[in-house]
Amino acid sequence: MNEDIFKKLIAHSKEYGFIFPSSEIYDGLGAVYDYGQMGAELKNNIKRYWWDAMVRLNENIVGIDSAIFMHPRIWEASGHVGAFNDPLIDNKDSKKRYRADVLVEDHIAKIEEKIEKEVEKARKRFGESFDEAQFRTTNPRVLENTQKIEEIRHKLADVMNANDLEAFRQLIIDLDIVCPISGSRNWTDVRQFNLMFSTQMGSVSEDANVIYLRPETAQGIFVNYLNVQKTGRMKLPFGIAQIGKAFRNEIVARQFIFRMREFEQMEMQFFIRPGSEMQWYEHWKQFRLKWHKALGLGDRKYRFHDHDKLAHYANAAADIEFEFPFGFKELEGIHSRTDFDLSSHEKFSGKKLRYFDPETNESYVPYVVETSIGVDRMVLAVLSTAYEEEKITKEDGSVDERVVMRIPPALAPIKMAVMPLIKKDGLPEKAREIMNELKFDFMCQYDEKDSIGKRYRRQDAIGTPFCVTIDHQTLEDNMVTIRYRDTMEQERVPISSLRGIMEEKVSMRNLLTQLM
Amino acid sequence: MNEDIFKKLIAHSKEYGFIFPSSEIYDGLGAVYDYGQMGAELKNNIKRYWWDAMVRLNENIVGIDSAIFMHPRIWEASGHVGAFNDPLIDNKDSKKRYRADVLVEDHIAKIEEKIEKEVEKARKRFGESFDEAQFRTTNPRVLENTQKIEEIRHKLADVMNANDLEAFRQLIIDLDIVCPISGSRNWTDVRQFNLMFSTQMGSVSEDANVIYLRPETAQGIFVNYLNVQKTGRMKLPFGIAQIGKAFRNEIVARQFIFRMREFEQMEMQFFIRPGSEMQWYEHWKQFRLKWHKALGLGDRKYRFHDHDKLAHYANAAADIEFEFPFGFKELEGIHSRTDFDLSSHEKFSGKKLRYFDPETNESYVPYVVETSIGVDRMVLAVLSTAYEEEKITKEDGSVDERVVMRIPPALAPIKMAVMPLIKKDGLPEKAREIMNELKFDFMCQYDEKDSIGKRYRRQDAIGTPFCVTIDHQTLEDNMVTIRYRDTMEQERVPISSLRGIMEEKVSMRNLLTQLM
Repeated sequence: MNEDIFKKLIAHSKEYGFIFPSSEIYDGLGAVYDYGQMGAELKNNIKRYWWDAMVRLNENIVGIDSAIFMHPRIWEASGHVGAFNDPLIDNKDSKKRYRADVLVEDHIAKIEEKIEKEVEKARKRFGESFDEAQFRTTNPRVLENTQKIEEIRHKLADVMNANDLEAFRQLIIDLDIVCPISGSRNWTDVRQFNLMFSTQMGSVSEDANVIYLRPETAQGIFVNYLNVQKTGRMKLPFGIAQIGKAFRNEIVARQFIFRMREFEQMEMQFFIRPGSEMQWYEHWKQFRLKWHKALGLGDRKYRFHDHDKLAHYANAAADIEFEFPFGFKELEGIHSRTDFDLSSHEKFSGKKLRYFDPETNESYVPYVVETSIGVDRMVLAVLSTAYEEEKITKEDGSVDERVVMRIPPALAPIKMAVMPLIKKDGLPEKAREIMNELKFDFMCQYDEKDSIGKRYRRQDAIGTPFCVTIDHQTLEDNMVTIRYRDTMEQERVPISSLRGIMEEKVSMRNLLTQLM
Repeated sequence: MNEDIFKKLIAHSKEYGFIFPSSEIYDGLGAVYDYGQMGAELKNNIKRYWWDAMVRLNENIVGIDSAIFMHPRIWEASGHVGAFNDPLIDNKDSKKRYRADVLVEDHIAKIEEKIEKEVEKARKRFGESFDEAQFRTTNPRVLENTQKIEEIRHKLADVMNANDLEAFRQLIIDLDIVCPISGSRNWTDVRQFNLMFSTQMGSVSEDANVIYLRPETAQGIFVNYLNVQKTGRMKLPFGIAQIGKAFRNEIVARQFIFRMREFEQMEMQFFIRPGSEMQWYEHWKQFRLKWHKALGLGDRKYRFHDHDKLAHYANAAADIEFEFPFGFKELEGIHSRTDFDLSSHEKFSGKKLRYFDPETNESYVPYVVETSIGVDRMVLAVLSTAYEEEKITKEDGSVDERVVMRIPPALAPIKMAVMPLIKKDGLPEKAREIMNELKFDFMCQYDEKDSIGKRYRRQDAIGTPFCVTIDHQTLEDNMVTIRYRDTMEQERVPISSLRGIMEEKVSMRNLLTQLM
């Protein structure tokens, strides 16, 4: 899927009520989106699939819901107050502020473009005999630029790893990077900018409590670890799961709902005996991949990316990357976090966070393996894979086109559309009768406007797996026409069989049974 | 339920994993709570019951999920920037800050206490012949104090309605109210304090965007009204529903999860033709009351409170009050909001928010009837009604006690506990076999520790409607003992009948069918 199709997907998401830009009538709010009537159902279904798979199916995992507001010391213990920063630089002429690393990345992207242009030129010149791989490894201009990119990447990694802000600025100056707005090289120093949103709780200015909007849900689990372990009588190994909002004041927020300032996470922290972390790390990598693949978006869409460079709290980490319209990107992270968080909270809170192991008669701080996925990214993964512009050759040989959202049926916002063929002769009443029976179990939509063909297209566009049409014959034989979204095939079935068909094809249950 | 039992409920909620004080290992954060492993399930079930009843069952209601962050102008249009204030006053000696109206209310409460003491004294003196009603209407000291209270209430209403801050201060001085900490009468002026939390978005300090954490979810619906109406092809009357967090910087946050600084709302805005509002207002009052009553917490627990004094946006308003441990208080509000919000957003955004009515060929700003309920209050309503300390007379005549949470089965965190009688002879394996079959549809808990009696008590304490015990006989006849939470009766049933029993007794479906 290219840039063009991605734009179409964004437009489609708005046009059919999946995702709206936030505060649109006020000209929007940067990198914040609202879920419309279809998006909210899709998102809820994704959250339910995760919760049921993690909490309901796993005897030793429980779910909690901790508040967004937390004691500010928690973010000192977690390292977020000290180190959750982006390097920023201002251009003095345009007064615009940039992420220093993004300026360098954009510079690299420009050199990459040059290479691609060179390749395209050669492809045109040589035609079918063009050997791209050879050209890339021998053409002097391409080679020079490739080497240049490598050098820049190396230097960028160096200054970032060393957190050397002076050298960072120098790199930008050495690369002769200009401000995209003013075109000038008049740069300020590079400074670190903390990504947490802060606010004040309480009204007394003397002791006004500066608190943060949590930048991740994980810490809400760690600080509740002992409460849950004790009150739930949990024995190691056990997990605590949570779904909730998190907030990051991203300077560069891009790519639709992929990176937002307000987003939602589904995180599970699995508490284990130290030394068993690699076994559990592998276990959760595999279980989480299975969870994804059960949706049927296509196994080729996923790959593991094992981290070479590890965060300060981790001794192993991998991403499950997904092929988004803009390439393979992180969808979920699995991290072996050691005892970093619990130990740090012991230190900062002064409370013991030990587990007494009845098997070894020892008391220790548990190790943790975490699985962490963004709900919104998951929505984007589903939407972008589901979107298809399909050419249809009709019986008379003419070609039609439809946009169909091939959303996994268990996640589809509407499970079944119920349509009377025409708006009279008792057909609407019969349609509502069917719907009023099924709606207690499935999300249904009643639609009586326009031709059946138009109505099918509308349901295709929101990903409804089944349409059921009620015609005059129905009143006599209690049969309806069921039409399948993916194949567009139609079938005459008894009304009494609809529930069974739905239970088999759209229920969360059948998705869940694939995991065990 | 008195103060003492309320304290026990709070302790029980913590001990059994329903509700923990937030950031407890850091000594807590004022008026913020976390939902533990039982509370999160209960809360999720309440949210699902609301969503299914409002969105799934009502053909003309759709659900959205708008962001917490919104454009700041929205809160000017809604009136929150200008008028969402509490009157605050400081004591200069203690440096403590108070809500001025709460100081006056506390003063009234003290006078009420005096009256009650007088009544109690008389009751003791006169014994059985005491006529309380007569005493209250004739005793001079009681009469004097009753009249005093009436006068103060009158004055308080006056200064608040007039927003006369100078007169407010004078009232506190006239009443001779002292600071509970310093005991002094050294008060500052009364000032208005805005209850919205604010933060800054983006990194450029020059044009740093001050934004607010939404104090209600309703505005997220209003600003999306046109998007939903158009993309969902909705016709009046129709509703938009939403569940989400809201935040208010309450100065006096009290009564456990009844009034929190971070809380969750379930709101539905119903868009209608002007002039039809009273009919829909009545409709939604009745439908919402039905939703509550279907839970079976007891019809006597609910009452309507019609507002005499209306908010600036409303032309009719009522609360559904619930009998909490501390008396009848607002659980839900139903408001006829006229076209106040949409018209105001038209004015502030410059965008037309009209509906073209194909029946009348007119274009107008719809009127709105809102239903708004706090998720956390609903949790408290369920928990506080469910909590019971029950005396049990055993067969041998001795008296035992249990704490049982009579949570409506469809809302119970755990639907069924599965227990092998002993931890060997293949019973745990058989228990897990049963559980692994049922867990795809119902939240189950496996429990093998301690005596069966102790395990029953633990499940009573978290409100599990059914316990299933697997014994040696089970291995031969595939029968289990099912034990009912409310009656404590036991029954021998085939394993194959468990699913049916569960579907009949704990499914959301049966709750929903009562509403239609």
